[in-house]
Amino acid sequence: MTHYSIGVDLGGTNLRIAALDEKGQLLEKVTLGVQVFLGRDHVIDAMCDAISHLIAKYKDSAILAGIGIGVPGIIDMKTGMLRESPNLPGWAEFPVHAEIERRLGTRVILENDANAAALGEKWLGAARHVQDMAMLTLGTGVGGGLVIGGKVWHGMTGMAGEFGHMTLDAEGVPCKCGSRGCLEVYASATAVVRMAREVIASGVSPSLASAASSDPEFSAKVVYNLAIQGDEDARKIFRRVGRALGIALASLVNAFNLPIYVIGGGVSSAWDAFSPAIFEELRQRSLVYAATAPADIAGDQGASAQVEAEGPTRTIITRALLGSDAGLFGAARMPFLVENRY
Amino acid sequence: MTHYSIGVDLGGTNLRIAALDEKGQLLEKVTLGVQVFLGRDHVIDAMCDAISHLIAKYKDSAILAGIGIGVPGIIDMKTGMLRESPNLPGWAEFPVHAEIERRLGTRVILENDANAAALGEKWLGAARHVQDMAMLTLGTGVGGGLVIGGKVWHGMTGMAGEFGHMTLDAEGVPCKCGSRGCLEVYASATAVVRMAREVIASGVSPSLASAASSDPEFSAKVVYNLAIQGDEDARKIFRRVGRALGIALASLVNAFNLPIYVIGGGVSSAWDAFSPAIFEELRQRSLVYAATAPADIAGDQGASAQVEAEGPTRTIITRALLGSDAGLFGAARMPFLVENRY
Repeated sequence: MTHYSIGVDLGGTNLRIAALDEKGQLLEKVTLGVQVFLGRDHVIDAMCDAISHLIAKYKDSAILAGIGIGVPGIIDMKTGMLRESPNLPGWAEFPVHAEIERRLGTRVILENDANAAALGEKWLGAARHVQDMAMLTLGTGVGGGLVIGGKVWHGMTGMAGEFGHMTLDAEGVPCKCGSRGCLEVYASATAVVRMAREVIASGVSPSLASAASSDPEFSAKVVYNLAIQGDEDARKIFRRVGRALGIALASLVNAFNLPIYVIGGGVSSAWDAFSPAIFEELRQRSLVYAATAPADIAGDQGASAQVEAEGPTRTIITRALLGSDAGLFGAARMPFLVENRY
Repeated sequence: MTHYSIGVDLGGTNLRIAALDEKGQLLEKVTLGVQVFLGRDHVIDAMCDAISHLIAKYKDSAILAGIGIGVPGIIDMKTGMLRESPNLPGWAEFPVHAEIERRLGTRVILENDANAAALGEKWLGAARHVQDMAMLTLGTGVGGGLVIGGKVWHGMTGMAGEFGHMTLDAEGVPCKCGSRGCLEVYASATAVVRMAREVIASGVSPSLASAASSDPEFSAKVVYNLAIQGDEDARKIFRRVGRALGIALASLVNAFNLPIYVIGGGVSSAWDAFSPAIFEELRQRSLVYAATAPADIAGDQGASAQVEAEGPTRTIITRALLGSDAGLFGAARMPFLVENRY
């Protein structure tokens, strides 16, 4: 019988669950309209019900390797407890891992959602041809994940990959982490909206002002729509995003010399608007990139094909391929990796 | 019989060679007054003679595991050739590795000198209790090395660990790498002298001006001597060094979550003058450091003892212990690691 695993993405407003076989073939994907704000026990009940249903369904046709859950927060590697999770109030210091294992009677692995997304892109996405990669997820904040030798690199206490809090400007915009000028304050969806509001406040952009006043949910997506319509103020904002990403990536490329850096998360749909500035900064700022840049500097599909053909000798910066499924599929990958963490 | 290896440090004005056994016990250390400017063949002759002499001497008492050579430049991992080495003119594109193996008839491993220094501190120095560590060497430039799982992490093409060229200030001082505001332009010996000359030029520091005019070889060491005598202008320069290191380390700690970051190289002898600023920046800028900082924030000897007792759960930033022997001993370590690279 084939082996399969179940991945859970607890990251957003929806709870999503997928069953995949060990080759990465999707067996089934379930999206539950679970309201995370209804609380921990409610979410765990719904999750365990849906998982039990899947387990019962595939019982006779495949062997369950385990369950992986991507969680928006820092996980204590020793206990499997959430240490901190602003998006999951009431979950911290609760033995999530033990409780779910107890209910389901099977092996459960928790992982930070950005790490799970990196693992998903490594398994089935933009980095599937390499063993080592880094990923930046541009969402409400900027998350990061690092995969070394095909596995998530956790660092000493499970906190590695916090690329969103690399300092780009020592005296820059204050960040909620306590520092200033972090990548996150220039390259997240929150940052795009803040920069747009700053431009509006300065009175120079009637187009942005009109978009903001006509849309009660003024978002990074609205700014992006203006940018693709050619609005210069909106385009400038995404050039700032790209510039910040380029500076951070230059430091990462110099430090890690990895074959692939994948940019995902909601803001990455604006790739066309911000990526030229990334490559401008990289070429200027990273001696390692200069020595290893692909001939096709835009480094997208062509570069992926190149890696497949030659093995990794070029530094590829590219957008994620799996969209919002990266974290879900990465979570499903975890039970297949031998590392038994708890 | 015990196994031993021979390490070579080709980094400075002297050529240094050491024989160590597999436990790291020093058998013999030789310093040759070889003038690197006399050229490649001259240096290789002198090196091979000295190594042959050592091999003959220990032939009957120990088994030679191999020879490791630390070289100031980028090594092509596939061919063992130097790709680029400003301090070794005439060596690039020459098959150094093959030539030395041919002459000595034994296994030779080349390594970048900053990587070798990191491996030395991991084996016998400040990071001897952990498997994963990073090192910054503050010399003429700022070099870096990364050790993962007890071995040098080379990255895709052998260029990982270029921490000296992380961007700290996008619009900052131009760097010879082509970027601006790199760590190297604020934390190298060259940077200390440049900052001192800037202060002198501004006319505000009679003490620095007098030191510079009375000493034809005005160096970082002269500035440090003024700093330890309490000269406030000199002290300010080292606070700038520490601040730059702290900002860079905050990004590294957030990205890697390693147990130990070791600061070595000549400028690290000014540790007392610059390290307080490192910890100030780290506490403010790194959420990972804040979660894992040792109780004793100065993080020096006490911290090392703590790692020994508890295993790595705290982030230690500390000065190197081996001084200029780090690269030499690290080079000798390489033949003992199973990885056979060429």
